Amino acid sequence: MKIGLDVMGGDFAPQATIAGVKLAEAEVPKSDKIVLFGKKSLILTELQKQGMDASRYDIIDAPEVIEMGDSPLKAFSLKPYSSLALGFKFLRNKDIDCFASAGNTGAMLVGGMMVINNIEGIIRPSISTIVPQENGSQSLLLDIGANPDCKADVLYQFGLLGSVYAETMMNIKKPRVALLNIGEEEKKGNLLFQSVHQLMKDNDDFNFVGNIEGGDLFSDKADVFVTDGFNGNIVLKLIESLYGILLKKGIQDSLVDNFDYEKIGGTPILGINAPVIIGHGISNAQAIKSMILLARNVHKQRLVKNIKNALSHYYLNLK
Amino acid sequence: MKIGLDVMGGDFAPQATIAGVKLAEAEVPKSDKIVLFGKKSLILTELQKQGMDASRYDIIDAPEVIEMGDSPLKAFSLKPYSSLALGFKFLRNKDIDCFASAGNTGAMLVGGMMVINNIEGIIRPSISTIVPQENGSQSLLLDIGANPDCKADVLYQFGLLGSVYAETMMNIKKPRVALLNIGEEEKKGNLLFQSVHQLMKDNDDFNFVGNIEGGDLFSDKADVFVTDGFNGNIVLKLIESLYGILLKKGIQDSLVDNFDYEKIGGTPILGINAPVIIGHGISNAQAIKSMILLARNVHKQRLVKNIKNALSHYYLNLK
Repeated sequence: MKIGLDVMGGDFAPQATIAGVKLAEAEVPKSDKIVLFGKKSLILTELQKQGMDASRYDIIDAPEVIEMGDSPLKAFSLKPYSSLALGFKFLRNKDIDCFASAGNTGAMLVGGMMVINNIEGIIRPSISTIVPQENGSQSLLLDIGANPDCKADVLYQFGLLGSVYAETMMNIKKPRVALLNIGEEEKKGNLLFQSVHQLMKDNDDFNFVGNIEGGDLFSDKADVFVTDGFNGNIVLKLIESLYGILLKKGIQDSLVDNFDYEKIGGTPILGINAPVIIGHGISNAQAIKSMILLARNVHKQRLVKNIKNALSHYYLNLK
Repeated sequence: MKIGLDVMGGDFAPQATIAGVKLAEAEVPKSDKIVLFGKKSLILTELQKQGMDASRYDIIDAPEVIEMGDSPLKAFSLKPYSSLALGFKFLRNKDIDCFASAGNTGAMLVGGMMVINNIEGIIRPSISTIVPQENGSQSLLLDIGANPDCKADVLYQFGLLGSVYAETMMNIKKPRVALLNIGEEEKKGNLLFQSVHQLMKDNDDFNFVGNIEGGDLFSDKADVFVTDGFNGNIVLKLIESLYGILLKKGIQDSLVDNFDYEKIGGTPILGINAPVIIGHGISNAQAIKSMILLARNVHKQRLVKNIKNALSHYYLNLK
């Protein structure tokens, strides 16, 4: 397997990204190859600094860098020799099997949709986060920001995407999919979520368990929480900030510890034709390592294929 | 001043409501009168049980009770002799100056809009919550559930309502009003919040400071956070549940302590013609006491009048 990594992506690149590669090495079989995208001279210097053997890696020289402030929509045409643009090109041409970056999230989403393309039938791809539960288990929340405006059928597909992710990557059988809502009764919520509830009710594509309120996001009542990217992003950032505050205050606790994003590594773009992982901008070496391993696993577990299978079942039902 | 209290409202009524009255007594001047709405025999028994002097209170006998499961829209016509229906009637007739209940929130909102009526020019009244800040100060978040579907002008008015509340009740001069959003730039957010940003930008009614993300809900960047009732309710319940989890784990901390709803007592219905306070269903005596004092303060500080003044300025500008 060839795992592509954007060495230039993230607030602490390239030091943190190369350090992450070093940490990942121990857990990646020798038969796999990590392919490094970035400024070659810079990569070689950093590898040497960290006492690593450059011959173990494929290095793809990318003289340009897409910065956090660059327009996601224009980045690929304006900077075709950036690590992101080249990474996506290699992935599309199957020269690598998966690609991961902690760089510009917007550009990653554009690359996913425009270069890799949506899986046929997917209206909008989605990004997600793991939400640790009070009892130690993990749930998935999506969308967390790719789609601030959603239509009902898009939210329905998020239920399907989340369900396949939970089954494939989190090893949960028949994942319980819930709508994050403001009341448990089916008539609760805004007009959009009331109509999504009707779409999901008695559906044949995933195991819908109804509405769940914000107060039950940690009480293991569902494996997948579906929301739109506006609400999901606010919830995610809120949880992250509380985690940060508690950490700063030195509050130690198993639940709090499980909010540590370093262990997760990032989110795949769910619903596109190849494994692409978006890491957190503030990723340190540990987070980059987790991101590399997540990219590897998404490919290994055939997440994309499983989503395609679930979709074909969904479209068969629509006919 | 006459302060109306629904003795029957809340999960632990009438024990907790009467105990709350007992606690409030110490802080309410003798010249004020607490008016108790509920089943008279039950109230008298409870007052005696708790060793209180019944002659200190006006007791309005209300043989019917609006339950949590009753339809808010039908409750007032089906149960005209309930504590809620009578309380609202007394308030409308100015036989009391303010009214508080920890009962059925939906029925409270209906009573507020249908019996007390919106202040002229208010499209939708709103309910709010106090959000403690990391530095010890307090901010306001609204709406928290009365309006799951909002139009842009409704959200604009929430900015005005929140600003007047923060100035009148929280003693903040020129309160900083922010939109709770998914990015700080003005083009960020869903279509609704992008358009609200344009409405609020450079406005003349309150001090708009721009978009603030979910990660800055506790970092004292704004005094008032405006959101719709769908997102706001999810955020509120999420925070409440985390507070509960941390409490259960015995985690002691000044910030965590400040999330204690007992100290707040509830939320006024902002934008109606008289002071109505909605308490938390699980209110204990301490929370009921805070709710009674809040009702008293909302009347004393002339919140309704201040909102009317701010609104007349707003409508003058529209002409």
